[in-house]
Amino acid sequence: MNHATPRRLSALFSPASVAIVGASPTRTQGVNPVLNMRAYGYGGLVLPMHPTAKEFMGLPAYGSWDAMPVVPDCALFALGSDKLLPELEAAGKRGVKAAVIFASGFKEQDAEGVERERRLADIARRYGMVVCGPNCMGVADLHSRFIGYSVPIHADLSPGGVAVLSHSGSGCVALSNTGRFGMRCIVSSGNSTVIDIPEYLEHFAQDEKTRMAAVLLESIEDPAAFKEAALRMHEAGKPVVVLKNGRSAKGAAAAAAHTGAVAGPYAAYKAFFDECGVITVNDLDELVETTALISGLKSLPSGGGVGVISISGGNVTMACDLAEEMGLSLPSLQEKTRADIEANMPKFAFASNPLDARTLSSEVYEKLLLSLSRDPAISVLMVAQDSSETLTDAQARTYAGVARGVARAAVATHKPVIFYNNVAAPLHEEIEQHLRGVVPTVRGARNAFLALGKLMGRPVPVVTRSIRRPFVTREARWVQRFERPEPLSEREAKQFVAECGIRVPREVVAQTAEEARRAAQQLGLPVVMKVESGDISHKTEVGGVRVNLRTLDEVEQAFNAILKSVAAAAPTAQIHGVSVQEMVSGGVEVLVGMSRQMPFGHTLAVGWGGVQVELMQDASVMTLPFDGDKAMRALGRTKVHVLLEGYRGSARADRDALLAVMQVLCDVGSVYGDLIEAIDLNPVSVLPDGQGAMALDALIVTKHQRPLSPTTDGPVPAAEAAVA
Amino acid sequence: MNHATPRRLSALFSPASVAIVGASPTRTQGVNPVLNMRAYGYGGLVLPMHPTAKEFMGLPAYGSWDAMPVVPDCALFALGSDKLLPELEAAGKRGVKAAVIFASGFKEQDAEGVERERRLADIARRYGMVVCGPNCMGVADLHSRFIGYSVPIHADLSPGGVAVLSHSGSGCVALSNTGRFGMRCIVSSGNSTVIDIPEYLEHFAQDEKTRMAAVLLESIEDPAAFKEAALRMHEAGKPVVVLKNGRSAKGAAAAAAHTGAVAGPYAAYKAFFDECGVITVNDLDELVETTALISGLKSLPSGGGVGVISISGGNVTMACDLAEEMGLSLPSLQEKTRADIEANMPKFAFASNPLDARTLSSEVYEKLLLSLSRDPAISVLMVAQDSSETLTDAQARTYAGVARGVARAAVATHKPVIFYNNVAAPLHEEIEQHLRGVVPTVRGARNAFLALGKLMGRPVPVVTRSIRRPFVTREARWVQRFERPEPLSEREAKQFVAECGIRVPREVVAQTAEEARRAAQQLGLPVVMKVESGDISHKTEVGGVRVNLRTLDEVEQAFNAILKSVAAAAPTAQIHGVSVQEMVSGGVEVLVGMSRQMPFGHTLAVGWGGVQVELMQDASVMTLPFDGDKAMRALGRTKVHVLLEGYRGSARADRDALLAVMQVLCDVGSVYGDLIEAIDLNPVSVLPDGQGAMALDALIVTKHQRPLSPTTDGPVPAAEAAVA
Repeated sequence: MNHATPRRLSALFSPASVAIVGASPTRTQGVNPVLNMRAYGYGGLVLPMHPTAKEFMGLPAYGSWDAMPVVPDCALFALGSDKLLPELEAAGKRGVKAAVIFASGFKEQDAEGVERERRLADIARRYGMVVCGPNCMGVADLHSRFIGYSVPIHADLSPGGVAVLSHSGSGCVALSNTGRFGMRCIVSSGNSTVIDIPEYLEHFAQDEKTRMAAVLLESIEDPAAFKEAALRMHEAGKPVVVLKNGRSAKGAAAAAAHTGAVAGPYAAYKAFFDECGVITVNDLDELVETTALISGLKSLPSGGGVGVISISGGNVTMACDLAEEMGLSLPSLQEKTRADIEANMPKFAFASNPLDARTLSSEVYEKLLLSLSRDPAISVLMVAQDSSETLTDAQARTYAGVARGVARAAVATHKPVIFYNNVAAPLHEEIEQHLRGVVPTVRGARNAFLALGKLMGRPVPVVTRSIRRPFVTREARWVQRFERPEPLSEREAKQFVAECGIRVPREVVAQTAEEARRAAQQLGLPVVMKVESGDISHKTEVGGVRVNLRTLDEVEQAFNAILKSVAAAAPTAQIHGVSVQEMVSGGVEVLVGMSRQMPFGHTLAVGWGGVQVELMQDASVMTLPFDGDKAMRALGRTKVHVLLEGYRGSARADRDALLAVMQVLCDVGSVYGDLIEAIDLNPVSVLPDGQGAMALDALIVTKHQRPLSPTTDGPVPAAEAAVA
Repeated sequence: MNHATPRRLSALFSPASVAIVGASPTRTQGVNPVLNMRAYGYGGLVLPMHPTAKEFMGLPAYGSWDAMPVVPDCALFALGSDKLLPELEAAGKRGVKAAVIFASGFKEQDAEGVERERRLADIARRYGMVVCGPNCMGVADLHSRFIGYSVPIHADLSPGGVAVLSHSGSGCVALSNTGRFGMRCIVSSGNSTVIDIPEYLEHFAQDEKTRMAAVLLESIEDPAAFKEAALRMHEAGKPVVVLKNGRSAKGAAAAAAHTGAVAGPYAAYKAFFDECGVITVNDLDELVETTALISGLKSLPSGGGVGVISISGGNVTMACDLAEEMGLSLPSLQEKTRADIEANMPKFAFASNPLDARTLSSEVYEKLLLSLSRDPAISVLMVAQDSSETLTDAQARTYAGVARGVARAAVATHKPVIFYNNVAAPLHEEIEQHLRGVVPTVRGARNAFLALGKLMGRPVPVVTRSIRRPFVTREARWVQRFERPEPLSEREAKQFVAECGIRVPREVVAQTAEEARRAAQQLGLPVVMKVESGDISHKTEVGGVRVNLRTLDEVEQAFNAILKSVAAAAPTAQIHGVSVQEMVSGGVEVLVGMSRQMPFGHTLAVGWGGVQVELMQDASVMTLPFDGDKAMRALGRTKVHVLLEGYRGSARADRDALLAVMQVLCDVGSVYGDLIEAIDLNPVSVLPDGQGAMALDALIVTKHQRPLSPTTDGPVPAAEAAVA
C-alpha cells in the first residue's frame, strides 16, 4: 500500500478539473457523475473524453489526453474492465494524479480479474496515481461539490462533518441516503486496490472539515495501517464508528484448538477494534443512529451519568430499562437539583431521574432541563418525546412546544442534549424544525440509548510500548520437529513450552502398570495419569485422563482402565504409553491460547480454562505484540479474572505468573510463527500469589502436521461449544 | 376481577349509542371523542349530557339520564375524579352497560385516590358495568368506528387485525400512531380497575376480526387470568406480542438468597411469558416491527429455514450476520434449486442462500424467488432492498421493479414472503405501493431478522397437568420455628428439608476440636467442616468452610482455623460450633432455589450451583405449580444441564433425583408459603444416574425472621454478581 499524503488525496476529493473517460450517452457511469456534479454545482472543469464524439451532455469532448486544454487532476473511468488498463496507463503518463474506476471484473470475479487488478495496481504505483476502486461507486465530496459518483445521488444531501467510508456499494447507498447527518464526503472504495480505508482515515484525520467517520468494512488488509490511522483519528478527537460485515463467517484457523471453539470468528476483530479505540456497531441502523447522535453533539461526553426527561411515566420506565441494558447510569439527583425541579412542577409531581415532567409547557420544560443540567452527576441530557411524522397536526403543535423549550435549554447549557422520538420513525417537521442544528435527534428510544452507550463506553486505544526482543530463541531441534508431519504429543508439547520457560508438572511415561506404580512412587502421590498419543487432542472425551490417584493400586487400575477405554474410543490412534504426572491442585484454571487469526497473524486468547472451557465460553482475545497493559485489559474482560482476584474468600492468584506465561506464548508466536498455527495451554493452573503458574496440558498445532483423523479425535462438537 | 363475556365487552367496543357525560366545549375529554367519531363516521347515536346546556357541538344535549331518548350502551365520562362517582352510579342505575373513565386522580395519585378507585370498582360490580380506565385515553374500534378516545387520533388509521392494548397512555399513542399495521382496535386501559388486559384478551380470542394482539404491560395483577387468556389466544391461532415495562426494577424479594442475585428482576416474568406462549420484546420498536411483520404474513411459519435474496453482496453478508445473531437458519440450497436459479442468473453468478441476485430485473427476481420458494428446506422468504423514502426518484423507479417481481412471486407461492428496507426508515411510496396488502414490509434489516426470529422461535405454551396433593405435610413444630425471629442455621434448614424428603449429608456439630476429631472418625474421612450459625448465610466469604479434610489432624486444624477467621470476619455473629459433615463428591453441583416473586407467588429457580453460583449467572426460573415437563424445560435453558447429561466423558447425572428435589421445594412453597420467603439449596449435588441427589447446603429465609445484620453478613456484592 502506498502511504498517501493528504495532498495526494485532495486530487481525488477536490480536483480543479476532471476527465470523464468513456463519456457516452449510453454509459450511465459517465452520465451520472455529470448529472450529480451539475445538481451540486461543481465549479471545476469537466472534460469528457471520447474517440470520436465532439460533444457530451452539452460539453466539448476530447479525443485524447493531449487534446485537453489542461491536465486534469482526476479522471473518472466509465469503461469496462477489458478496456481500462491502457487508458489508465495513458492518464498516468499524462500526469493525472487521481482516478476513480467504477468497473467490476477484477479480483471479485475470477483469476483473470485478479491478474488484471495486479496490473492496475502496478500502473498506479508507477505513476504515483491515487485510485479509488475498482468495482466501486466512487467519491462524493459535499464541500468541494465534486461528485465523482456513478449512481444518482440525492441533490439535497447536507454537507457536514461525517466522512462515510464503505467497501460495500449497497451499504454506501443505504448510509448516504438516510439524510440523518451532514456529510463531509461519501467514499465507496470497492476493491480498494490502491487506496484503502486506512489511507482515507489518515486523510480525514488531518482534514479540518471532518469531525468523525462512519465506516462499513468488509475486511482489513493491513491491521497495522488501520490501527495507525485510527490512532490519528483518535488524536484528532474524531470518533470512528465501524460496522464490520461478515462477523459470522467462520475461519478454518485454529478450529482444532480450544481457542477456536471458545472465541467466535469476530472475537479477534472486536479485540482489535477495541485496541484501536474504535466504536463498533452490529447493523446498519446502529451505524446510522450512532453517527447521527455523535455528529450532532456539541461536545463528546466520556464519563458521568445521563439525565432523562419525558412527559410520561411509561417513557420514564422504558428509559430505565434501556439505560440498564446499555450500561448507562441514571444517577439520583442531588438535594439542590430536586428542590429546583419541584419548585417548577405541578402538585403530586416528584423530582427524580428519569423525570416525568407532567407538563408540555415549553417554559417549564426549559427550566426543568436546565435544573437537571446543573446537577454535577449528570453529563448528558436526553429528552424522550413522541414526535413521529405520523402524529396528528394538533399533537405535533403541542409537542413542538416541548422541542422549543428543549432547544432554548440546549443553547443555555454547555452539556450536550439529545432529543429522541420514542419509536424509530422520522420526526414531524413541526417538531424537528426547532431542534435542527441545535439538538441531535435520534429515531427510537432503543437507538438513542444504544448510540449513547456506544459513545460513553467507547474504548480507549491501546498503544503498545516499544517491542522488546523475545526471550524465546529459535532452536534447530524444534524447527525440525515442527516440520515433521506427526502431530506433537502432549508430552512433547509440554517439553517445548517448558524449554521456553513455562513451568509444567513433572512426569514419567509408563509402558506397563508396574512402571506406572514406580513412577507414582517417585513423583509422590497423588498423581494424574493421561494417555500419551499425538493423535488425540481431546483426551478427556476418550476416557484418557484420570486424576487424583491416591494409592498405588488406584494407579495400576487407572493404567489399565485408560488403555482399555482409549482403545475402544479411538482404535486407530497410536499410543505411546501412559504419562504419570505430579498432581497440581489449588490453582485457578485458565486457558491461554495462541492462534493465527487472519488478518491479525498470531493472537492470544485467555479465559476460563479446564474441562469446562467450551461450556464457559469465556475467552478474551488480544492481538500481538504483547504488552502488560493490553494483557491486563484482555484479562479484565473475562469471567475468570474474578477468580484470579481471590473469589469468595479464596487466595489471590499469581497474576504476574499468568502474564509471564502469556508473554512466552507471544514470544513463541513471533519466533516460531511460520511453523506453529496454534498452541493451547489448558489449563494453566495459576497458583496462589507468589507460587507461580503451571501449564497442566499443552497442545501444539503445527503448520505442517497431517490432519487429525476424525475417527480418532477432533474438536469438541459444535453443539456443546454453542452452549452459552 | 369480573370475568367478562364477549357480549359484555361489545358494549364497550361497538355500542349502538354513547353518552358524553360532562359535555362542555372547554373539556377536551368530551370534545375529542366527538371529533374522532365524526372523522371516522361512527354510525351510532351520540348523546351529550350537561346539567344546563341544550347543545354540544351541534348535537342536542340532555340534562339527565332520564331525559335521553334511549338508554345508551356506553358512557364516556369527561369529568374530574372528584365529580365522577355519583354520575357513574346514576349511569349504572339507568342500565348503562359500559363506561370509559378518562380522569386521573385515583390510585396513581394518593391514598384518597386509592379509596376513590375502590368505590369505583364497587359501583361497577354492583351494576355489572364494564369500565375502561380510569386514568386512560379510552378505546378506539376501527371496525365499528366507535372512537371513545380522549386525544386526537389520526383520521386515516387502517382497520386491520391487530388489537393494541396498553396500560401506558404514551405507549398507546406511540404504538397506534405508527401506521405500521392495520388495527382491530386501540385500548388504553389505564388503571384497569374493572377490566384488565386478560379480559380484553379473552374478548379478542373470540373476536373474529382480531388476528393478533400487541400488548404494552406495566404489571400483571392476576397471573392465572393472564395465562388463561393467553392460552385462549394461542388456541385461536392469534399471536400475542408483549412489551413489559419496568424490566430493570429490582424487587426486594429474595435478595438475601442466591437466587435473587442470579435471576434478574425480569426472569420470573420472562419465564411466565414463555409458559404462556407469548412473544416478548424489549422495546417499542421491536413491538412495532414484530407486530408489523406478523400481522402482514399470510401464514405463520413455525419451523424450517429462511431464504434470503438481495441485489448486493454486502446485504447478503449482513443477512448472514443477523440471521446467526437471531438464531435463524439459512439452509443450503438443494441441487435442484441451485440448477433452477442458475438457469435464470447472469454469468459469474452463484446460486446460494442468501442469494445475491445480481440483477434488478422484475422478471428475474420473480423467478429466483419462486425457485427459492420451491426448496423444501425453506419455509419463509425474505427480500432485502434499499427502499427508503429518501431514495432519488430514479432509484425508487428502478427498485420498484424488484417490488413488483416480489409481489407477483408472493401471490404465486404459499410460503410467506417478507420485504425489508435495509435501514429502519419508511419505504418510498413508489416501492411500497406494489407490496401493500400482499407482502409485509419491515423497516431495517435488524428489525426484520429480529421480528422473524421472535416469530419462528415463539414459545409453545406450557399447560400444567392436574395438580396433585403435595407430599409435604405441615408440621406444627416447624410452623412454630418459622414464626420465631431467629434465622435458621444451616443445620436447622437441612434438618427441615431432610424431613421433607430431601437427602442431606450426615453431620455432627462439634464444640471442641476434640469433638470434631471424634465426629470425623465416626463419619469417615474425608469430611467437610462448616461454621454453625444462623447469622451467617454466606459462610465461604468469612472463611467458615473447609472441605476435603483427609486426616484427623487436618480436622483439628480446620476447627481452630474456622473459629478464628469467622471471629475476625463476623465478630457479632452467634456461633453454635462447627458442623463436621460427610463429604460428598463426584456430583454435578446445582442450585435449586424457591423464592417469592410477585405477582407470581413462589417460583423455582434452577441453575449452575456451588461456590461460583453468582459468577455463572446461570439460573432458569419457573412459576408454580410444578410439573415434570415444565421443570425439564426450565432445566433445558440452563448451562448446567449440559453437565447433567454427562459432559466430556463423565457419567450422566441422576436427573430424576434432581427433579424430585425441585418437586419437594415446590411442595414446601405450597404448604409453608405463608411463612417462608425463600429457600436456597446450593449446591444440590446430583450424583451419577441411580445414585440420587443430596443438598449439601440449605438456607431458609422466613417471613418473620429478623433482618441479618449487614456487618455479619449479607448477599454477595453486586459487583461480583454482575459479572456475566
